[in-house]
Amino acid sequence: MDERLTQQLSFALEIDKEKNIFRQTHLSGHGRNENDAEHAWHMAIMAWLLQEYANEPVDIGRVMLMCLIHDIVEIDAGDTYAYDPEAKKTQKAREEAAKERIFSLLPPDQKEKLSAIFDEFEESSTPEARFARAMDNLQPLILNNSNNGSDWKEHGVSASQVYERQSHTRPGSEKLYEITDRIIQDHIKKGNLR
Amino acid sequence: MDERLTQQLSFALEIDKEKNIFRQTHLSGHGRNENDAEHAWHMAIMAWLLQEYANEPVDIGRVMLMCLIHDIVEIDAGDTYAYDPEAKKTQKAREEAAKERIFSLLPPDQKEKLSAIFDEFEESSTPEARFARAMDNLQPLILNNSNNGSDWKEHGVSASQVYERQSHTRPGSEKLYEITDRIIQDHIKKGNLR
Repeated sequence: MDERLTQQLSFALEIDKEKNIFRQTHLSGHGRNENDAEHAWHMAIMAWLLQEYANEPVDIGRVMLMCLIHDIVEIDAGDTYAYDPEAKKTQKAREEAAKERIFSLLPPDQKEKLSAIFDEFEESSTPEARFARAMDNLQPLILNNSNNGSDWKEHGVSASQVYERQSHTRPGSEKLYEITDRIIQDHIKKGNLR
Repeated sequence: MDERLTQQLSFALEIDKEKNIFRQTHLSGHGRNENDAEHAWHMAIMAWLLQEYANEPVDIGRVMLMCLIHDIVEIDAGDTYAYDPEAKKTQKAREEAAKERIFSLLPPDQKEKLSAIFDEFEESSTPEARFARAMDNLQPLILNNSNNGSDWKEHGVSASQVYERQSHTRPGSEKLYEITDRIIQDHIKKGNLR
């Protein structure tokens, strides 16, 4: 087998490990914790479904790819809970090292392309990245909403913490931020958020 | 909330259930069974990575979307194991009913688009569908190969059964079929296939 295809299949096998990285979000129906691969799959379909609400026109194929790969670094770096300030301090360094190791399995041209897509997402530097980030927030929100806010209750999360995180939805989609705000207000009323 | 967005979010929540549909394939490292959402995520990334090996030029965004949604009907119809002839007899009817119910949650224009993409995949009627089907075969093959063929051994699968299934890779990618053939031959030699 030629070297290029060997490298591509080696990367394809490596990312299988993302299915073992579990998040704080629970599946609907008060199910088990969700893993990163499932989260990414869900975000990518939601991006396609909701593309008409992006603030700026987006290349939807690029948004979907960004959604699919944005958490690959967590294979090494682990999931950093959005409301864990201590873990967030070291997140950047852990994820940079992981990005270098994992994307280096690829042929150089594909390493460069996927690293650039990963950075674009992290930096919210394009309409595609801003819309993908809106999905990264909205996807766990709809699951948690369906479970009556149990993920927030479990961790004693406050309304201001949720607003801080969800504010990143707004640059991607004003319309989806309106819905987000309505959901948060509803959970404040129900006493599910501190 | 307007009716259109309500329908879209209702579909987005419904498909969460795909994470509970487990397949016969096991994760690498002799892990647990894989679920449909993880399988679809993995296929979509592999499609992007390996697009240069498609027999015909493909719209990669369309291939990825096809990979992501091709198993949604299994929320109702369940997973049909590729080597279970009894279950395969009723598969089409079960999946058609599921397609109608699940895609009807969407606004009519999106129901029509996703149903068409689903049918395109089923019928292998385009270069995109043929390449997506190659991914549907190759993705479990690389996992099973990494686990020394344990999924085949568990079910006593024969070489001719595997060749019948994997023959659908060829119309999508001659190059990836070559690798497939080499992997199967290797497992025949090792005695992992009847």
